[in-house]
Amino acid sequence: MTWEPELEAAFNPKSVAIVGVSSQVKRGGPRGPGGASFILSLEQLGYQGHIYPVNPRAIEILGYKTYPSVASIPEQIDLVIVSVPARDAPQVLEDCITAGAKNIHMFTAGFEETGETEATALGQQVRGIIQRGGLRVIGPNCMGLYVPSSGIGTFDRLPKKSGPVCFISQSGGHLNWYSHYGPNYGIWFSKGISFGNAYVLDSTDFLDYISNDTDTRIICMYLEGIKDGRKLIRQVREINHYKPVILWKAGLTEHGARAVASHTASLAGQEAIWRGFFKQTGAVQVYSLEGMAEMTMTFLYVKPTQGKRVAVLGLGGGTSVAAADVCSREGLEVPALTETTQNELRKFIATAGASIRNPLDTGMVFRDTAALTLEMELVAADPLIDMLIIMPHLDMARNTSNEQAEQLVNYLSDFAKNNRFGKPMVIVFHSFGNDPWETELRNRLKVELPQQGVPVYGSLISASRALSRFSEYHRIQKEMAG
Amino acid sequence: MTWEPELEAAFNPKSVAIVGVSSQVKRGGPRGPGGASFILSLEQLGYQGHIYPVNPRAIEILGYKTYPSVASIPEQIDLVIVSVPARDAPQVLEDCITAGAKNIHMFTAGFEETGETEATALGQQVRGIIQRGGLRVIGPNCMGLYVPSSGIGTFDRLPKKSGPVCFISQSGGHLNWYSHYGPNYGIWFSKGISFGNAYVLDSTDFLDYISNDTDTRIICMYLEGIKDGRKLIRQVREINHYKPVILWKAGLTEHGARAVASHTASLAGQEAIWRGFFKQTGAVQVYSLEGMAEMTMTFLYVKPTQGKRVAVLGLGGGTSVAAADVCSREGLEVPALTETTQNELRKFIATAGASIRNPLDTGMVFRDTAALTLEMELVAADPLIDMLIIMPHLDMARNTSNEQAEQLVNYLSDFAKNNRFGKPMVIVFHSFGNDPWETELRNRLKVELPQQGVPVYGSLISASRALSRFSEYHRIQKEMAG
Repeated sequence: MTWEPELEAAFNPKSVAIVGVSSQVKRGGPRGPGGASFILSLEQLGYQGHIYPVNPRAIEILGYKTYPSVASIPEQIDLVIVSVPARDAPQVLEDCITAGAKNIHMFTAGFEETGETEATALGQQVRGIIQRGGLRVIGPNCMGLYVPSSGIGTFDRLPKKSGPVCFISQSGGHLNWYSHYGPNYGIWFSKGISFGNAYVLDSTDFLDYISNDTDTRIICMYLEGIKDGRKLIRQVREINHYKPVILWKAGLTEHGARAVASHTASLAGQEAIWRGFFKQTGAVQVYSLEGMAEMTMTFLYVKPTQGKRVAVLGLGGGTSVAAADVCSREGLEVPALTETTQNELRKFIATAGASIRNPLDTGMVFRDTAALTLEMELVAADPLIDMLIIMPHLDMARNTSNEQAEQLVNYLSDFAKNNRFGKPMVIVFHSFGNDPWETELRNRLKVELPQQGVPVYGSLISASRALSRFSEYHRIQKEMAG
Repeated sequence: MTWEPELEAAFNPKSVAIVGVSSQVKRGGPRGPGGASFILSLEQLGYQGHIYPVNPRAIEILGYKTYPSVASIPEQIDLVIVSVPARDAPQVLEDCITAGAKNIHMFTAGFEETGETEATALGQQVRGIIQRGGLRVIGPNCMGLYVPSSGIGTFDRLPKKSGPVCFISQSGGHLNWYSHYGPNYGIWFSKGISFGNAYVLDSTDFLDYISNDTDTRIICMYLEGIKDGRKLIRQVREINHYKPVILWKAGLTEHGARAVASHTASLAGQEAIWRGFFKQTGAVQVYSLEGMAEMTMTFLYVKPTQGKRVAVLGLGGGTSVAAADVCSREGLEVPALTETTQNELRKFIATAGASIRNPLDTGMVFRDTAALTLEMELVAADPLIDMLIIMPHLDMARNTSNEQAEQLVNYLSDFAKNNRFGKPMVIVFHSFGNDPWETELRNRLKVELPQQGVPVYGSLISASRALSRFSEYHRIQKEMAG
């Protein structure tokens, strides 16, 4: 289908009916999947509209008046969440048609994706009812919508805060993960959409909507299958100019494609076709949720650059060699600094047991912020360098004191924020200890610094991959614009 | 040089002289690099031999009688650690010749690797003295030896416990990392060797020694350059049959090769040549320290298998798809379970919203150890499956209680230890929370479980990579034997 404005009510509903809520559920008891847990999620998110449980064998659930059917509710329902066993789905959908409720999130699973004959036939029957009723169905076999500004969500303990990122995901589990752990990367969401088997609404429909959504600046997508490939290419090529599209296409391997069939009954498509897709659209390809989160963090917090020449400031000759190899493999360049910069560095850094070329193996500066400032300023001013990766050594700073390690990191954060060279600067902690103090500090900084505008990556590999694709995005956009 | 038995005294010395120890050092004060810190390391490791600081301007340092030169010490010295500035190295080496001390660890750096003319000339002069005196030099520009059974080591807080792994490393920083964090992977060391610029002793010389070392079962190597490539191929091909050789060759990219020159002044060689090396020798290639540690953990704790068909037991359809893609890319197969197994699983697992094919998306079993046992037994008994990757969901178990999450993990550990199917079983935690309780549990289990014989990997990518290379190693060994 094409996008219908009426579906927008699903993202900001005045009323939500949940069909299939156990009458046995108690507040504070165990939270099973579906049904009552959806009511609890709406409450957690501060949903302000009306909540109507539907259960023909109850009159009140969790304090809400309960109705035997959607049609018996005395209000027009903007969003129906269907959470009944698959065999009951046809009857519930007929009820929705009767009630004139058209926006349906089908949590219910157990159709083609099981690979079972009977379940597949049931899916066909459901499709028929949906088509006849003109229902705007999200799903089935999905977690539906997460809209923090509307108080809409289906998972436990979702963040209430909104942000500029939309996630269109064929997997509910991935939406859960990203919604919960996004904030650790400084990422909050405008909308999250889990759409499962895509009987009616597919990724292209949601893209139609999100392309015009002023709350969304960056679009993340997780796709298993796609119905209208030509439309997706056309859309993404266009949208990617003004809202970067970060896309994880799963099921590109033989075994992955079989797993896709078991999950959302989609046809996964071939790797070569999708290579063409990324080439034609300029969309940013990722291969995991962590990769998606780190790439999104990059687009949110790193100053745009088309350059790919990086300076790495760290400690250890072996680490420097590894850093150069890793950056190279990810498509970055690690040029030697200019003679001028090297001569300036030589004035205050002894070269025995160190290197001032690039990567810089000058760990001692992590104990002396004056020297560190001078080093960073000289490197950032080098005309051969487009961006800086700093690898602070908490172990070493800590040999002096815990306070010094914390001061070092605060200092780097301030420097990055006030970086007058306008070149991207990011952090990768070169520390691995299981020491509780250090683990706590590192975990805390990984969460806090991105929110202060200084991206922190889990590894040099992921940092250089993200920076490489980030600068490539800006080169492609420039080429296309020119 | 070829291996000389006299060098064995360096690994188990009765006496150690450290040349270049500041007289200003105090116990409990800051630990600078080199000199006095080496004495403190020997003490920490419980070294039982004699320690002689050498400093012409002191009579006692840290309670040890101090001598003006090596020659003035009234005992034959089995190991001299040279920790003076580069310009003083010639004189110290002449002193060693006079003293008849032949085993020398040169910590001193500042030669060819700086790229500076004067320093390079000094390196040439030093080489001349070494050759004339027939000195068995480890280094220069390196951290030398770590032998816990002898109480020998140069880093702070090294583990005292010995183990079956030897690490031959051209980088001291890498030796430091691996020695300290190896135990987190259940890895302890027989010997660690950092050999830097390799003026005399190169990796092939250390291999000669370690190939006959009964304390060593697995050999890890980090190489930047190599002097005698033919010898290395011959050695590794032979040794790899009875002691797996896990090798990280750095500097294979253009930028990495330049970094190698700055680090140990080695010629890094070309990627194609090294591809040939790995093909001819069957050595196991890794690309990072974490990769080396996880591969070593695999060889230490996973039951040998030549198969590559894996079952993945986890939670979430999207996660299953990702798992299949990841395993496929790393060279494993993820076959559908046999119809028989699927039918047995169907008896107690509802297929709506789940998958029992493979990867298994049956997260609910993580709340019910009886169901989990049955599932694992059925999967492990499937003739199409060679190994199992279990992805326990601590979040979910914890929804019931913290105790249940801990019990789940203890249960898995017991199951793996008593696994009567004899198929490898490893764990990857599918949990990402920053929640302190969960972080602590996960960190603790990552350290404890490998020591109990159940490898835990940081990610599914690293687990499948390690298992894939592990089974390949055993296939290659079988082919070569056949």
